[in-house]
Amino acid sequence: MRFGILGTGVVGKTIAARLGSMGHEVMVGTRDPEETMSRSEPDQYGNPPFGAWQQEHPKVRLGTFGEAAAHGEMVVNATAGAVSLEALEMASENNLNGKVLMDISNPLDFSRGMPPTLWVSNTDSLGERIQRRFPEAKVVKTLHTMNAYLMVDPTQLAEADHTVFVSGDDPEAKAKVTNLLRSFGWTDIIDLGDITTARGTEMVMPIWLRLFGALQKPIFNFKIVR
Amino acid sequence: MRFGILGTGVVGKTIAARLGSMGHEVMVGTRDPEETMSRSEPDQYGNPPFGAWQQEHPKVRLGTFGEAAAHGEMVVNATAGAVSLEALEMASENNLNGKVLMDISNPLDFSRGMPPTLWVSNTDSLGERIQRRFPEAKVVKTLHTMNAYLMVDPTQLAEADHTVFVSGDDPEAKAKVTNLLRSFGWTDIIDLGDITTARGTEMVMPIWLRLFGALQKPIFNFKIVR
Repeated sequence: MRFGILGTGVVGKTIAARLGSMGHEVMVGTRDPEETMSRSEPDQYGNPPFGAWQQEHPKVRLGTFGEAAAHGEMVVNATAGAVSLEALEMASENNLNGKVLMDISNPLDFSRGMPPTLWVSNTDSLGERIQRRFPEAKVVKTLHTMNAYLMVDPTQLAEADHTVFVSGDDPEAKAKVTNLLRSFGWTDIIDLGDITTARGTEMVMPIWLRLFGALQKPIFNFKIVR
Repeated sequence: MRFGILGTGVVGKTIAARLGSMGHEVMVGTRDPEETMSRSEPDQYGNPPFGAWQQEHPKVRLGTFGEAAAHGEMVVNATAGAVSLEALEMASENNLNGKVLMDISNPLDFSRGMPPTLWVSNTDSLGERIQRRFPEAKVVKTLHTMNAYLMVDPTQLAEADHTVFVSGDDPEAKAKVTNLLRSFGWTDIIDLGDITTARGTEMVMPIWLRLFGALQKPIFNFKIVR
């Protein structure tokens, strides 16, 4: 299957690598591919620059946001929440309409210091804003409640039956995303309902950040025991 | 040990019954004890009125908010979040100063329809507001991320090692609350840090409400797999 992954950060690269290794045709989208390829320094978290990463994943192509979205039968928003709507505008509505748009972003606001707060929450969510702006895209919010490495490989935790959530208005789109999640190894997938339920999952980020501090590691996840 | 439980709703009664059955001396506080005892109808959820409940728990005494707070060596805020600050004012600062104040409330706002939203979140929390208003009380936020019956008996779920969180500024107060939680049967107790971490746990309520809808039952809980 053809995937367009918007965003060259850790989340985008991790999803792209996983999909590529499974035999999917992956294009990663960025604002300015030349600029992205010209980076020679590690990013702020010490990750290698995109060019170095791509040498290890030669089948993953790089293009503009628009090229990646046009390439994908399914499009993944893996950009930072602060720029997601702008990146999706650059991807162009025409390249999103009718497609499943898997949204992994979090509306983190770093302007008030650490830990970040949310710039939309409680009575609205970033997932809903994206769905309202692109009404013909089939937005499915998922995977954004955990670390990137867990997203694509839940067995990184020995007790692998922890939980991933899906939120979205379109049942068929959620079924497609659920199949993709199963192919990543997910077994406990809870459909919370329509895209407004993304308020609940986005509001999980503050406790995630505090757990990250308390546990001193990012590889953990929520399991809904019932 | 002497406990003052503020609130005669399901949470207050469930905590009071459990503490009473463990041999603690419990007084439940309410705005107007006579009015509370005069109720003869079930509440909006179909629970029996307080008088009927008390006949089955004769050792649990009923008093005003102030009497219950004065009685308690530890005070538990089990009132609805919307009235918690008012109830604590009625309990009187003098009766709270120097004591552990276990806060189980959630700042739910029902004025915008269902599911409720939060009237404080993201950059502040009800736990913090209570701590700021009563700086000499030792506020520990805990247990508010689940159904009342699970709070006092985690073994209601077969897989009983799910998680309860504690947030608070005073390490000694958190240690006392942790011991109480252990006596309820809790084994996985995560100290998230100071009272500002209550933002994270209070913001769990929106996904809890959506899970309640998706799972069609209230007896479930979060487990932090790590």
